[in-house]
Amino acid sequence: MALRISEGEYRRRRQRIFQRLGDRGVEALVLFGGHNVGYFCRFAFIPTERPIAAVVTPERAELLVPRLEVEHAEEGALVDDVVSYPEFPGERPPLSYLRDMLERLGLTRAKLGVDADGYGRVFGSRGPRLSGLVPDAEVLDVLDDIEYLQMINTDEEIALIRESAKWGNLAHTYLQEFCRVGVSETEISLRASLEATLAMLRTLGPSYRAGVGQTGAFADFRGQIGKDSALPHAISTNVRLKPGDVLVTGADATVWDYGSELERTMIMGEPSKEQEKFFRLMLEVQTAAIEAIRPGIPCSAVDEVTLRFFGEHDLEPYWRHHTGHAKSQLVHEAPFLDRGDHRLIEVGMVFTVEPGIYVPGFAGFRHSDTVLVTERGAEFITYYPRDLESLVIPV
Amino acid sequence: MALRISEGEYRRRRQRIFQRLGDRGVEALVLFGGHNVGYFCRFAFIPTERPIAAVVTPERAELLVPRLEVEHAEEGALVDDVVSYPEFPGERPPLSYLRDMLERLGLTRAKLGVDADGYGRVFGSRGPRLSGLVPDAEVLDVLDDIEYLQMINTDEEIALIRESAKWGNLAHTYLQEFCRVGVSETEISLRASLEATLAMLRTLGPSYRAGVGQTGAFADFRGQIGKDSALPHAISTNVRLKPGDVLVTGADATVWDYGSELERTMIMGEPSKEQEKFFRLMLEVQTAAIEAIRPGIPCSAVDEVTLRFFGEHDLEPYWRHHTGHAKSQLVHEAPFLDRGDHRLIEVGMVFTVEPGIYVPGFAGFRHSDTVLVTERGAEFITYYPRDLESLVIPV
Repeated sequence: MALRISEGEYRRRRQRIFQRLGDRGVEALVLFGGHNVGYFCRFAFIPTERPIAAVVTPERAELLVPRLEVEHAEEGALVDDVVSYPEFPGERPPLSYLRDMLERLGLTRAKLGVDADGYGRVFGSRGPRLSGLVPDAEVLDVLDDIEYLQMINTDEEIALIRESAKWGNLAHTYLQEFCRVGVSETEISLRASLEATLAMLRTLGPSYRAGVGQTGAFADFRGQIGKDSALPHAISTNVRLKPGDVLVTGADATVWDYGSELERTMIMGEPSKEQEKFFRLMLEVQTAAIEAIRPGIPCSAVDEVTLRFFGEHDLEPYWRHHTGHAKSQLVHEAPFLDRGDHRLIEVGMVFTVEPGIYVPGFAGFRHSDTVLVTERGAEFITYYPRDLESLVIPV
Repeated sequence: MALRISEGEYRRRRQRIFQRLGDRGVEALVLFGGHNVGYFCRFAFIPTERPIAAVVTPERAELLVPRLEVEHAEEGALVDDVVSYPEFPGERPPLSYLRDMLERLGLTRAKLGVDADGYGRVFGSRGPRLSGLVPDAEVLDVLDDIEYLQMINTDEEIALIRESAKWGNLAHTYLQEFCRVGVSETEISLRASLEATLAMLRTLGPSYRAGVGQTGAFADFRGQIGKDSALPHAISTNVRLKPGDVLVTGADATVWDYGSELERTMIMGEPSKEQEKFFRLMLEVQTAAIEAIRPGIPCSAVDEVTLRFFGEHDLEPYWRHHTGHAKSQLVHEAPFLDRGDHRLIEVGMVFTVEPGIYVPGFAGFRHSDTVLVTERGAEFITYYPRDLESLVIPV
């Protein structure tokens, strides 16, 4: 299978969203989020202060881009037309060109399904709301429907996620190999990411494309080293590894915008009794959560397994976050394996499962695996060793 | 000068914004944007679906964070209190905790200055508008005022931007050194970024902190190689360098969240007459734009110099974007050196100056330099050689 999303798949996405929105009478989608434009129109671009929007009907797709993206969009996007405005802020507001597009397409009085009511205010951008531009149209928020479509991964998408996991696995292998007392987290991470990315490029050849702003494969620690491993979202401090450190890692590779999530708890040298105890509890609760996943139950039911485990083992003081989240193109995606998320788990969803135990001032313990929901339950996509023995770094 | 923003500076930022908003009677700021929370409260964090908000009054600053960020915020943020909610989506909406905070602070009927009316809908996040949560408050959009403050860089900020430029310069030096026929853009970029980052870490020592999601210094091509150099915002395709290729590069380093922008046009082997012609025109128009910058004139006046140059040299078919943008912490920032941006240039603003000439199917030509506005005009912060002779790669 080619490492990309096929043209047919893009067309099926458009069919599916209009099937889903059919009973609500939506005549066209107007999309502002870069991720959504890419999902329906195969245009991967760097988001800036310059608005980009897609208008998609069951028959047609058009893009509005700034002048600087015209040739790029014509080359890369799967659309029937590319319309442009000169620049932002420019002499005429960029979104006034969107109003003209909608007028030409006969959509100024239509029911428009949108992911947002206008372009965001990122990087100094400003612009009117869509509903103000086309006051006679009915603007309907359909972001939930778009996200629902994105939750259910097709074979093509799953193939990309699986490919991602392979190279994340390689990056993590190098990361573990390069761990040495006295070396900084940044050095280990950059060297592992370099080696894995070069191997990936040489293996996949020129057909390989990462994602916007991504280079290839990477593995890192993001500051979760020693005592700071107890901060679930630490940020890099370039600390050097010491004997006895608990390390919480992360690895991923983007393949045509799709990714996976692999995280491991590793220990520098022979684990102490206390480290071993928390590691084994973490592994046990992660296993229990993965085994709880099956289609038809609510996401919250999986988180409840985690929460029950924390209760039974007096771990509540060390609880910091929910069990996991959906994962395909973004860092985090809905739905969430969270006690408050009652959406049903379905076949084709991909989740991270990563309940963590964080002991302040001591250490944090978290593995994250990416799993695919099948009829039979959760199937591992990531496959790095999870057992303690495999994750001890000799010092 | 220490490589960080001092506590005094954070406090002065709060004083300045309330001075500016004083006549509008704003009693408190409510901030949702990660960048704005960091700017006023020194909390650098990974933005996710979990809302984070800051409430800042002239006397006090408090943060609302998810449970997983409590210890991290207590350690890193410059605030009087850290309040938390368990999780998103959780059993109770996170922003209901914000309403409780505002109630405790006596602000539910106050005039609140905000950067947005609620947390964004990123990564599957959903939540109410702030104006709906506190219907008796007056919610006033003050993003323009916050951005204005951020435009005028203080000595501490300029020192960080200058430090960034040094390491961007080193990364670019390695990038140029590593360019060889047959090597992929990704390999050259990763090796250059690795070497520059390690030199930077070893020089600056453990006090160095990058920015959220950043490792250190980098230099790359982002796909602007050969014919694709004519796409101003190409994305990486991992193409290998060939003799005759025009390359458009970029380099930066983040130092305590601050960055700079350095971009160069380089040529693989002896330039053709045509390449040389466009290179010299590009250099000439960049120089003219830089020399046009001075405090007191509108941003648009600088772009008009560029546009006049394009007109006089029959370059209009090759025009793709405005002359530049402000630059400190984000990739792009307001104001813009754009014919439609009539805000006045002031001392302390930092701009990129990067008019580009893009000949479809042939090549693109763009240098970007970061300059500081002083009483005397634009002063270069980036300092990599700009002349053609220095930018020819022997093949």
